[in-house]
Amino acid sequence: MEIMQVKDELTVTRRVDGLKTASLRVLIDHKGGLVVAVDTVGAHPGNWVFTISGSAARHALDDKGITTDLTIGGIIDHWDDDGSRKARPDEGAGQDQTKAPRSAKARKAA
Amino acid sequence: MEIMQVKDELTVTRRVDGLKTASLRVLIDHKGGLVVAVDTVGAHPGNWVFTISGSAARHALDDKGITTDLTIGGIIDHWDDDGSRKARPDEGAGQDQTKAPRSAKARKAA
Amino acid sequence: MEIMQVKDELTVTRRVDGLKTASLRVLIDHKGGLVVAVDTVGAHPGNWVFTISGSAARHALDDKGITTDLTIGGIIDHWDDDGSRKARPDEGAGQDQTKAPRSAKARKAA
Amino acid sequence: MEIMQVKDELTVTRRVDGLKTASLRVLIDHKGGLVVAVDTVGAHPGNWVFTISGSAARHALDDKGITTDLTIGGIIDHWDDDGSRKARPDEGAGQDQTKAPRSAKARKAA
Amino acid sequence: MEIMQVKDELTVTRRVDGLKTASLRVLIDHKGGLVVAVDTVGAHPGNWVFTISGSAARHALDDKGITTDLTIGGIIDHWDDDGSRKARPDEGAGQDQTKAPRSAKARKAA
Repeated sequence: MEIMQVKDELTVTRRVDGLKTASLRVLIDHKGGLVVAVDTVGAHPGNWVFTISGSAARHALDDKGITTDLTIGGIIDHWDDDGSRKARPDEGAGQDQTKAPRSAKARKAA
Repeated sequence: MEIMQVKDELTVTRRVDGLKTASLRVLIDHKGGLVVAVDTVGAHPGNWVFTISGSAARHALDDKGITTDLTIGGIIDHWDDDGSRKARPDEGAGQDQTKAPRSAKARKAA
Repeated sequence: MEIMQVKDELTVTRRVDGLKTASLRVLIDHKGGLVVAVDTVGAHPGNWVFTISGSAARHALDDKGITTDLTIGGIIDHWDDDGSRKARPDEGAGQDQTKAPRSAKARKAA
Repeated sequence: MEIMQVKDELTVTRRVDGLKTASLRVLIDHKGGLVVAVDTVGAHPGNWVFTISGSAARHALDDKGITTDLTIGGIIDHWDDDGSRKARPDEGAGQDQTKAPRSAKARKAA
Repeated sequence: MEIMQVKDELTVTRRVDGLKTASLRVLIDHKGGLVVAVDTVGAHPGNWVFTISGSAARHALDDKGITTDLTIGGIIDHWDDDGSRKARPDEGAGQDQTKAPRSAKARKAA
């Protein structure tokens, strides 16, 4: 699973039937490249997420009939783009982390 | 899923039986490399598309017996090769986007 | 699916049972690296081919019990190593294309 | 399977259901990149591990319903980050190897 | 399938159950990176081998329950690390090829 940042939504009117009406996101991978993933957790531009690839990308969805090879697996609670996670006083799941100051101090889940 | 641009059709007279008569396209990936994908959405040279790889490439097809590892998943409505999508007054699905002026402003699907 | 050129046959006396007596080829990928693929279409050194990877590599074979992760999917009728295909007066499937002059003009299959 | 070093735990409150409550680790791959893996062997930051990817990542788990594409397969008894393993007088499985002096001398399992 | 050279055995005391007691090898890939593969053909350090990845890595084993994503598919009879195979008067399957003089002349299997 890889760590990426959500860049944008993706508009695809003409698509294969297998994708149904899945919500698509453009993500930036760690090399700066752009990829497309199915999103079911409600990730927003700026969120740091990790992605599930391959056949697991389909198994991760409630509707296993959606033919994706990349699915957002979750929104990382705290992440800085230098690869460190951060504890913030106002932390909460699903917040936009893009403006978070960077810190090398990691924190464990409660 | 990756974002690529259609370069050309591909002529392959001698092929494995598993590919049947699937329509093949040569695509340019984000590194400038060339790959081959099955096309069922009618993509034309110049179109920006996203591709589905791995076992999902087969599941994306109506005929799951076609042995591809890369299938065009859809034609992106608006895309510039600097990674930004663009709203155009004359926009429409399936148009050739190669000559579209670039813009960093994204737009959502209706 | 990727575009590669056949370099040589491969002699492997001691192999896993799952490969059976499949014919193996050494191919050169687009980065100049060497990989090994199962060949069932009769590709010769110098031929430009495209390869099917992953689980599709097995499905592409008549004998699905052969445990390959890379199979030659077909011989490209006309290909130059600058990435363009070429129309030749004497063209024919399965010819050795290594000595073909280069051209950026593509041609469609009849 | 690839050799990586455990960097940290990962906190992901909002995740796809398929991941259930699997314990996640951030790993550093051999290129210095960061990836996320499911851990069931109890790896700690600093441990050298090898990872199982693709569909095998799911099969490696007792609960095959966990939708991962990367699972820690085991903790390497002795490993230096220059790629050599080391015999130590106080060696034992599961120790933190990060402070081990480097040596090019490999040792076999008992 | 990729061509790699065996570097060493790998000692992993604490491992996921799915790997059982499979024999593991550290291999050097064509970029100089290190990977881990299951070995059932008896490859020794110095041997040139080719590897089977993905789901095929499991299918290649007699015990398909072993959860590997990389399996040694066979020992290449003659290989030089400049990518050419070599015919030797004393050639035989399974020999250590590390000391073989290099030659660009390939030879076909008998």
